[in-house]
Amino acid sequence: MITGKNIVAGKFSNTGANTFKTFNPELNLDNEWDFFEATADEVNSAMQEAVEAFELFTVCPDDIRAKFLRAIAQQIEALGDELLNVYKMESGLPLNRARAERSRTLHQLNMFADFISKNDWRGTFVEEAEPNRLPKPKPSLYKTHIPIGPVAVFGASNFPLAYSTAGGDTASAFAAGCPVIVKSHPMHAGTGELVASAIVRAIEDVDLPPGIFSNLNSGGIDVGKQIVQHPKLKAVGFTGSIKGGRALYDLAASREEPIPVFAEMGSVNPVVISSNALKTDLKKWVEMYAESITNGTGQFCTKPGLLFGIDSSELDEFAVQLSQKIALKDSTVMLNPSIENNYESNRQLAIEQNNVAVLTEAHDVKPNYGKQTIATVDGTTFFSNPTLHHEVFGPYAIIIKCKNLQQIQEIIEHIEGQLTGTVIVEKEDFEDFKPIVKALSQRVGRLIYNGVPTGVEVTEAMTHGGPYPASTDSRFTAVGVHSIKRWIRPVTFQNFPKELRPV
Amino acid sequence: MITGKNIVAGKFSNTGANTFKTFNPELNLDNEWDFFEATADEVNSAMQEAVEAFELFTVCPDDIRAKFLRAIAQQIEALGDELLNVYKMESGLPLNRARAERSRTLHQLNMFADFISKNDWRGTFVEEAEPNRLPKPKPSLYKTHIPIGPVAVFGASNFPLAYSTAGGDTASAFAAGCPVIVKSHPMHAGTGELVASAIVRAIEDVDLPPGIFSNLNSGGIDVGKQIVQHPKLKAVGFTGSIKGGRALYDLAASREEPIPVFAEMGSVNPVVISSNALKTDLKKWVEMYAESITNGTGQFCTKPGLLFGIDSSELDEFAVQLSQKIALKDSTVMLNPSIENNYESNRQLAIEQNNVAVLTEAHDVKPNYGKQTIATVDGTTFFSNPTLHHEVFGPYAIIIKCKNLQQIQEIIEHIEGQLTGTVIVEKEDFEDFKPIVKALSQRVGRLIYNGVPTGVEVTEAMTHGGPYPASTDSRFTAVGVHSIKRWIRPVTFQNFPKELRPV
Repeated sequence: MITGKNIVAGKFSNTGANTFKTFNPELNLDNEWDFFEATADEVNSAMQEAVEAFELFTVCPDDIRAKFLRAIAQQIEALGDELLNVYKMESGLPLNRARAERSRTLHQLNMFADFISKNDWRGTFVEEAEPNRLPKPKPSLYKTHIPIGPVAVFGASNFPLAYSTAGGDTASAFAAGCPVIVKSHPMHAGTGELVASAIVRAIEDVDLPPGIFSNLNSGGIDVGKQIVQHPKLKAVGFTGSIKGGRALYDLAASREEPIPVFAEMGSVNPVVISSNALKTDLKKWVEMYAESITNGTGQFCTKPGLLFGIDSSELDEFAVQLSQKIALKDSTVMLNPSIENNYESNRQLAIEQNNVAVLTEAHDVKPNYGKQTIATVDGTTFFSNPTLHHEVFGPYAIIIKCKNLQQIQEIIEHIEGQLTGTVIVEKEDFEDFKPIVKALSQRVGRLIYNGVPTGVEVTEAMTHGGPYPASTDSRFTAVGVHSIKRWIRPVTFQNFPKELRPV
Repeated sequence: MITGKNIVAGKFSNTGANTFKTFNPELNLDNEWDFFEATADEVNSAMQEAVEAFELFTVCPDDIRAKFLRAIAQQIEALGDELLNVYKMESGLPLNRARAERSRTLHQLNMFADFISKNDWRGTFVEEAEPNRLPKPKPSLYKTHIPIGPVAVFGASNFPLAYSTAGGDTASAFAAGCPVIVKSHPMHAGTGELVASAIVRAIEDVDLPPGIFSNLNSGGIDVGKQIVQHPKLKAVGFTGSIKGGRALYDLAASREEPIPVFAEMGSVNPVVISSNALKTDLKKWVEMYAESITNGTGQFCTKPGLLFGIDSSELDEFAVQLSQKIALKDSTVMLNPSIENNYESNRQLAIEQNNVAVLTEAHDVKPNYGKQTIATVDGTTFFSNPTLHHEVFGPYAIIIKCKNLQQIQEIIEHIEGQLTGTVIVEKEDFEDFKPIVKALSQRVGRLIYNGVPTGVEVTEAMTHGGPYPASTDSRFTAVGVHSIKRWIRPVTFQNFPKELRPV
């Protein structure tokens, strides 16, 4: 049952008077529940409880935290169909997607449980003393990693489960031993509350201090601001827009004690397709890209937004067939009217630019539905117009017809940082494409060969991040076990007897 | 021979008209050389050359970079006595210290050469494809780490070699494959030029692109500002004051593309001494701490500045003997008149605070010499007066007489982040000291048992960093092979054929 209340250290709380509602984009009406904006007192209580709980959580044995992560997964699963239905009501995403995302969420929690069950995850490294070393003795050194402290998590609009309340940021922070304060996403506050209540039950199951988790509602930005500015907060995880991520980054950097923010933000995910690949397999690439651009109404941070090719009859044919394929697809609903409004204005802005031609554009769609669109432009225009480099979050892509590979390389060297870059080539293209691959590797966190960028494997070898503005710190990943490195720091014990070291 | 010129991508350059001189604090007069302030054009050229050189350096094989690092060490050694003499003339530090610091610098370069000669230093991790996985195939993933791009290095006043031109930041950045732009320290610009010329010769020896290194002179802050604001710079390494480090951090955070800054800054390095330890070994601790506080005129970032104990006859006796020991030591010269001025005003500010008593204070010292000082204060006063928590960079320490261990713990929980924390205890103290050790572990990068914090081992198990303001990012270390992690980022190749991956 959804109460609309905040959860402050395990307790439901609604001391404030202001409320907001979530929205069903498919039905185009408000959902029933009223969510209570967290008050300044509730934020302070959540932070204070987190600080106190950290005293215990920081020395909580790995096996107990592993048990806790598995308990969260079990409690989320136990929410059953209610979770799936609320997810659908708050996002417009279909039930099969809800199921897939739930699986991914449970997988992430269990993956971190496995990871911290291995003894070597802290990178502990011991150097013995050398009492006879000259000119002076070498001390013994024991280096390990400890949790950084309370972490704030801001979930994503487009992943109400896997990148939200108990998503990758929360799972990795708990795995590290950090308390988590979630600023619940206002578009899916009900989904968030259900998952938050599952976390609370898991805390009870494993008998951990309730202060390690709070879930705070807010339809605006003040609650998030207050959390990030709280002097005891030690780090921030965010998934969302460049504007939102940068605002939090700036706030965190201007604190008296600056703290790290890992924000995974915008990306247009360039794809470079060789004429040979189009000659060989046109139909395959048309099908794969029609799907990748429109799947989930194009609301993936890895959606391919820029398709580069050499101006040629092959590229023209690809453009025609891709457009036809996409025109035949049914339009689908977007997450929220505000997302649809942003899509529509960004889409309009892009297609109104000089020399941009629209190849396909859906018309007369239902309210909150995304008009799937394919546009095209020449490389010279694209290079000189930064408006065309920006993300259009939704079922939109632009085909860029370039003079030659040098022009594509030059464009890639001038675009902003990206989550992904893709090349679609045949063997005979390898030599020619090496400079393109190198240029992409300087710009992205992940390179894909002969595939689509959508679909992020949750594994140790994944990098989900990249140079700014794909993320605020390209040295980390948001996905996979190494995402835990965002929340731990090294500490060295010199000549310390074992009995005197904290666990 | 010292020319006073900048080095821009291997070429000596003095297009500007403004010059400055370094200062011999021992003789209390200017050194002979005129150093040319780098101009905006020289900064831009250095950056542009770095960007172009990075194209080659980023794919430079590990064994060539290892050879390069060893060549730098050889070329620095080949500078012979000239380097040691200039070092002494610009810092006032004695020749034996110059020799020790040179050894450390060579060791760091060779250590990184060894490190990148091991195949696994990039943390490369491969996952095979699983074409039959359901519901969809798993791609192959190849994750590795690549250099982040051009890095700016701002050296330390107190380590003209080991934390400066070819110090740990530069060595680790070159090891990673990043071009380095050094903003030479104005107090030891001659030492810097000699080392920079050694780097240039090493670049020639190994035939690398000259753009991977520039050395820019400046007596003010504008050159550093221009470097950090250059859009192609990707990271900053800094060692110095909180004020300087924070200014660079703020500049970097406010760029259109924010970049990471690792600044190692201030620290007061709390030490907690048990009464039992004083009963058992008073003389030993007096000798060790008299040396640790005054060595190098107290100009170490790890100098113990706060000595906590329980108000007792043992602590009184320690205070008396430590003061006597320090009073008997000859005063020594500080690095520079400005450092001495800062020391003197910070020292005065501290000893003028309410309830602070001076136990020892050197008088009538020569110009630029540091007055070694031991003061004392009660725990309650210390707790409530943040002025006493600040670093006094020089041969100064304050003994804090506390009511009990709870008071010490409470104070530690409220002081800022530190590079180190030390406990001096006997076995029978272990149980009582566990909360102290835990509180320290939340505040510092390194904990020392029954020793002094000065003396930082350059090894894999070292952590030299800590919570703000000890550093701007507690997740990294400035010393040891893991300091390379500041300059590398992960990248994943999905389904990529080996032939198409950059080296």
